[in-house]
Formats: sequence, C-alpha cells, structure tokens
Amino acid sequence: MPEFFKVIKYEEALISLKNNFPLKLRKKVFLNEANNCILAEDIVSSEDIPFFDRSTVDGYTVLAEDTFGSSESMPAFLQCIGEIKMGDTVSYKIETGKCVWIPTGGMLPLNANAVVMVEYTEKLDENTVLIHRPVGPGENVIQKGEDVRAGQKVFKSGKLLRPQDIGFLASLGIDRIEVFDSYNIGIISTGDEIVPINKKPLPGQVRDINSYSLAAAVSACGCKAQNYPIIKDNFNELKSYLKDALTWNDIVLISGGSSVGIMDVTLDVLRSFEDSEILFHGIAVKPGKPTMAAKIREKLVVGLPGHPVSALTIFYVLLKPLLSCTMPVKTEAFMSMNIASQAGRDDFVPVRIVDNGDLKEAVPVLGKSGMMSILAMADGYIHVPYEKQGFSKGEKVEVIFF
Amino acid sequence: MPEFFKVIKYEEALISLKNNFPLKLRKKVFLNEANNCILAEDIVSSEDIPFFDRSTVDGYTVLAEDTFGSSESMPAFLQCIGEIKMGDTVSYKIETGKCVWIPTGGMLPLNANAVVMVEYTEKLDENTVLIHRPVGPGENVIQKGEDVRAGQKVFKSGKLLRPQDIGFLASLGIDRIEVFDSYNIGIISTGDEIVPINKKPLPGQVRDINSYSLAAAVSACGCKAQNYPIIKDNFNELKSYLKDALTWNDIVLISGGSSVGIMDVTLDVLRSFEDSEILFHGIAVKPGKPTMAAKIREKLVVGLPGHPVSALTIFYVLLKPLLSCTMPVKTEAFMSMNIASQAGRDDFVPVRIVDNGDLKEAVPVLGKSGMMSILAMADGYIHVPYEKQGFSKGEKVEVIFF
Repeated sequence: MPEFFKVIKYEEALISLKNNFPLKLRKKVFLNEANNCILAEDIVSSEDIPFFDRSTVDGYTVLAEDTFGSSESMPAFLQCIGEIKMGDTVSYKIETGKCVWIPTGGMLPLNANAVVMVEYTEKLDENTVLIHRPVGPGENVIQKGEDVRAGQKVFKSGKLLRPQDIGFLASLGIDRIEVFDSYNIGIISTGDEIVPINKKPLPGQVRDINSYSLAAAVSACGCKAQNYPIIKDNFNELKSYLKDALTWNDIVLISGGSSVGIMDVTLDVLRSFEDSEILFHGIAVKPGKPTMAAKIREKLVVGLPGHPVSALTIFYVLLKPLLSCTMPVKTEAFMSMNIASQAGRDDFVPVRIVDNGDLKEAVPVLGKSGMMSILAMADGYIHVPYEKQGFSKGEKVEVIFF
Repeated sequence: MPEFFKVIKYEEALISLKNNFPLKLRKKVFLNEANNCILAEDIVSSEDIPFFDRSTVDGYTVLAEDTFGSSESMPAFLQCIGEIKMGDTVSYKIETGKCVWIPTGGMLPLNANAVVMVEYTEKLDENTVLIHRPVGPGENVIQKGEDVRAGQKVFKSGKLLRPQDIGFLASLGIDRIEVFDSYNIGIISTGDEIVPINKKPLPGQVRDINSYSLAAAVSACGCKAQNYPIIKDNFNELKSYLKDALTWNDIVLISGGSSVGIMDVTLDVLRSFEDSEILFHGIAVKPGKPTMAAKIREKLVVGLPGHPVSALTIFYVLLKPLLSCTMPVKTEAFMSMNIASQAGRDDFVPVRIVDNGDLKEAVPVLGKSGMMSILAMADGYIHVPYEKQGFSKGEKVEVIFF
C-alpha cells in the first residue's frame, strides 16, 4: 500500500518555492538585447535631456514678448532673419522684432524662449512674417533638462524593460546595461511507459508529452529549457541525470514518478543528495496533488505529476508566477454552469471563453485529467480558492489566460 | 509653406494597412520550435488517443458489476491476481470476482471496464482485496479514443500554438508542422540631427532612439528586426537603403522625415518606386498625425514620425494589432482627472495605473511629445475615440498595457 503524503496548501507551496528560489545571476548586455529583461542596476543619467532647448513644432522661434497682444485682426510683424536646420548647432541670439524659421526638434537661438506654430503665421514677403496669435514664454519648447536632469535616477534595479524603456536608455546614450540572466531549467521526463514522440507507442505506452509542453512553457517565461532523455523509473539512472542537470541548470523539473505508487523513486533520489531538503511533498490542489519540491544546495528541483494536464497546470500556477516577468492576462467572465470543489483544496479549472456580445461566459472544459485536449481547448483557467466550494452558474469569476 | 496632407481616420488607416499587409510565408519547423507560432495547416489525428483503455487513478481494475452493492459495512471480496506495471502491454482478460492492481496511466485488461481507487479498498491478505464502494462501467478510465478519434480535425490553420497545444501535438506523435514564418521588418532612422547612441551629440543633435525602441517593439511582436544605418534627409541615400530594405524585408519602417517640413523626402522616395501606391499620408490621431504608408509591390512601408514618443505610439496602435498574435493586456480603471481631446481625432494618452486598494486609477502622464520619459513612466495608454471629446475625472476607462 502506498504511503500517503502530508499535503500543504497551495499558498504555502508558492511561498516555499519563492523563499527557496535560486538567486538570479547578472550579465552585461548591449541595449539592443535588453528588451524584456530585468534591470540589475540603478540607472542614473549623466546629462540633461534634452541638453538644449528644442522646438516641439514647425514654426517661427521668437522672443515671446514680441507676440503679446497679437491677433487675427492685429497681427505682430516680425522680421524673418533665416532658417534653422535640423541638427544645426545654433550659437547666436535674436534681437527683438526678429524671428527664425525652426522645424520640429530644431535647436532654439540662445535667447529665444518660444515658438509660434506655422498654422498661426503668415508669410507676407521674403523677410516679413505675420504672427496671428501670442505665445507665452516656454510655449512649444522642451527646455534643457525638462525630460531628465543630470544626476537623476531614472530606473531602479528590478525594472522590466519594455521597448519605450530601451528607447529612453538610448536617449541617455546608455548602450550597455546589467540585467538579470534568465534561468536555465532542466526538464526530465520519467516513466517506464513513456516513449519518444516520433516512435509509435505499443499498447500500454504513451508518448513523451511533458518534455514538449514544459519546454514550451519554460521558454514562454523567457527561460532556457534543457531537455534530457526519457528516463525509466530507475533510481540510478534518474540520480545520474539529475546530478548532471543540477550542474548545468538553476532549476530542474522532473515529471512523472511523483505520483503515489510503487515506482516512486523521485523522492528517494532527491533524498539521496547531500544537502538536500524536501520542501514539500503533496499540495492540496486539483489537479497536481502529488507535486513535490526539494532544495539541493542552492538549486531547486520540482517533481511534477506525470499526467501532462496536471504537470502543465502546476507549472502555470506554481512556477510561472515566479519565473515570468510579465503580468498575467486576465478577464472577468460569468460562469456558464455550477462547478463544485472541495473546501480545503485549491482547484484550477480550465475554461473556454464564450463571448455573447457584452457578456463573457466562462465554460468549464470537462474531461479526465489524462486528456491533453482539455488544455488545448481551454483559453485559460479559473482558480477556486481553498475556502470555496465552487462557483455557481452566473457568478462572476476571473479567468487567467494561459 | 509646407503642404498640408489629407488626413484619414485611425480606423481607416488600420483597415488600409490590414488590407495591404504582406502575406505570410510558411515554413516547416520541429515541434519544439513551434511555441507561439501560428499554425499554417490543419491538423488531423491519424490515431485514437489514448489507443488503449487507461486508468486515471491508482487502484484495482475490475469488472464494474463485481462491485455493485458494495459498501463500507458490506464490502465486496475480490481476488487479486496480480499487478499491472506502467508501460506493460496487457493482453489478458480477467474473470468475474478477480481484480488486478493498476497504477495511474496503466493499461486495463481487455475486458476490465473500471478502476476502484485505492482509497476505497483494503488489502485483507496477499490475495484478497475488499472493495468498499461500487464503481460504474467506465469509472476512473479514459477509454480508447476518448481524448481524440482517428480522423478528427484537432486544430485549424491560423491557430496560435501555446505550450498545451505543443503538448497535444506531441501526444499525437506530430513532430514537424507547418507554421507561418515571422515577418522580417527593416527599420530606417532618418534625420540630419540624429547621431548613434554611443556618440555624444552636439547641441542641436539627438541620439537615435527610434532604431532601439522600434527594434525592441518589433521583436516583442515575435518579428525579426533589421536595423539600417542612420540616414540623412537625402533622397538618394534614403532611396538606396529603402531599396535594399525592401529586398530583404516584408515591411519597412522609416522614422523621421515624415513630419510636415522642408526636408520631407520620404514621400518623394516612396513615390519614386515603380508600382508604389501611397495608402495614406496623415492620420487624425494624436500623437502621430504625420504617419504615412505605401505599398510597394507586395511590400509595405510605413513612414513614422521622427518623435520617439509618436513613432512608438503609432507602432503600438497601428502595427502591433496586425503583427502580434497575442492578446493585448487590458485593465479597467477610473480617470484621476479630466482629459480633453478634440472630437474628430483619436487620442492615445499614456497613463500610469495607481492601485488604491480595490480602485484602480488611470493617471495621465503629461509632458511634451519629444520627452521619451513619458512612455517610460507609463504602464499603458487609453484610447479616446474619434467622436469623444475626452474623459471626465472618475469616468471608467480601459487601459491597454504596452
């Protein structure tokens, strides 16, 4: 008769993994490789941005005072003394009563303090421009240091870098930054019944689904997946591959071999390592109850159920929140039917979203836990928390997309 | 005086780009490279999955009828005649009154039709098992073909493949599939004032932000970005690089040189190609009004504003919806203040989300359009549609995350 494990709560398992998660390593990357990375240093600007007064419009740069009181019927007459080109370094001043054509992004003359948009001007002749509307000092100008001041801390370590953040760093002239390296995650599929996917299984055998779905899920979190050959439920074989996997990876996922059964060797292998600590064995969740985790020195090993649906669901609810740096995509929907759950257990129920105009319905995808089609047909899942005994038809729920 | 363009609506620009979007090419990939790809073929299963009756629990496989009427106080007595191991091909039948130990995933004997979970059994001696609860035919069993039937169409072309879909294809033994290739997108930054980011700009010059932010945004959509050297606002130089970019890419983004101004050569270059068709020049949006697009043979060229904030915003609202295969992440929030917009224009306003417990506030990030910090500080944006003249403080809005 198999041993029964002492199950812990889902929340406790999450916290346990979080507390024992391997530390991230840092690496220096070029800016064009840094998108979607987590910054591993504080960024301080060494200069004012912009570092000259720039026009934000096409028009005439002026002394604002020269335009005061001007209107459609009483325009101000200014003498146009030239044209500023994009990229020109402007090192002159303008006198009162004068103006200069300036393009969007152009540098203002040293004492000019505003730009009149071309729409509110009229060119009378080669040298004379009518101004139909007054501008205030600073109008249509980004002033030196208005975007960023020299010495200003612009990003803190830990920030997820998005395209605009990459652009912002480019504007500061920062072309190399320190980011956290992504995790290397080893994936070991175990089971006497598992055969490679390009092999026709005999009756009683099944194809190795977990190596594929878990590697894809690992990559989708921005981590590097390393697959190992399929391992029979054999202590020595598993120990030898796990040893190798622990050398090259930060985290190792072992799927199969963790269900309550006579061939449960994973736990024995985990215990056999020096400095190994079993964090938990069994979580009060459905699916995925037989999940286990161990810390082996600074590395983490998670034993996932062999069932592909359970293994991937546990990855989504237990590992993805700790690995992925992007926010989960969620939507509100209304239950299409009652679903029951035991109190004292967290349930994760795959659902399809059916859009009935304004009303989104969450329709549970029912089926047995060995059926991979369940997750393939689902858009996301709902979480029935520990205390709750399910949801009623029509109840509002939050659907988390895969 | 610069020419003014005939602006079209945002919705019209989206439709125009959609109708003129380059066709996707197909490629054959191994299953482990297919995550997050779009399937380019229909997938039909060539076999029943599972292709034998499997147990979904650990327990004893039985003829269901032998357990009828059993209970805690009146258990059924069955003779245990052995044990099925994972991966075993089982080719025998069991007689009435007999049972066999079976693990989760094990193959049932040919005529067995149910499994009793170990929790509801008791081993009396080596050969005798007490059954405390009846099972119905099919209980705790996935039947042959229950997940997928041979000949069943499981996925249609056009489906975005997620980890569970990869796993599902693995379960069918499909290790190579046809997917749509990702787009190659060339990025050309133009402007006399633009210098490489590792060079200290002179007054009047600015660093090349767009090459970085656009390349990151292109990659984030799963496409391949190809950057070109910075080009002066010079007809011949731009034409020569664009010609090259059109050879190697499906789509080319040109930033800068599309604002109304004397150095506007982009339009001239686009017109100078044989078989070029200007799709639009000017969109009634803020920011990004001077955006233009042209079809050159089967390729698409989009002229983006030079302003980094405008260029990236236009990428997000006009190109990302057509390029990215994942859903935008959205949340509801309440405006922290009034924001005004002109009717007859679509506005895209960057906002921060401030979480006040249950209430999420959308706080506009204000600043001038040349300031890259605006987008770096924002979590997402809100869309003020064409007809609307803004949102009022406290009004519920939808925030689209970048």
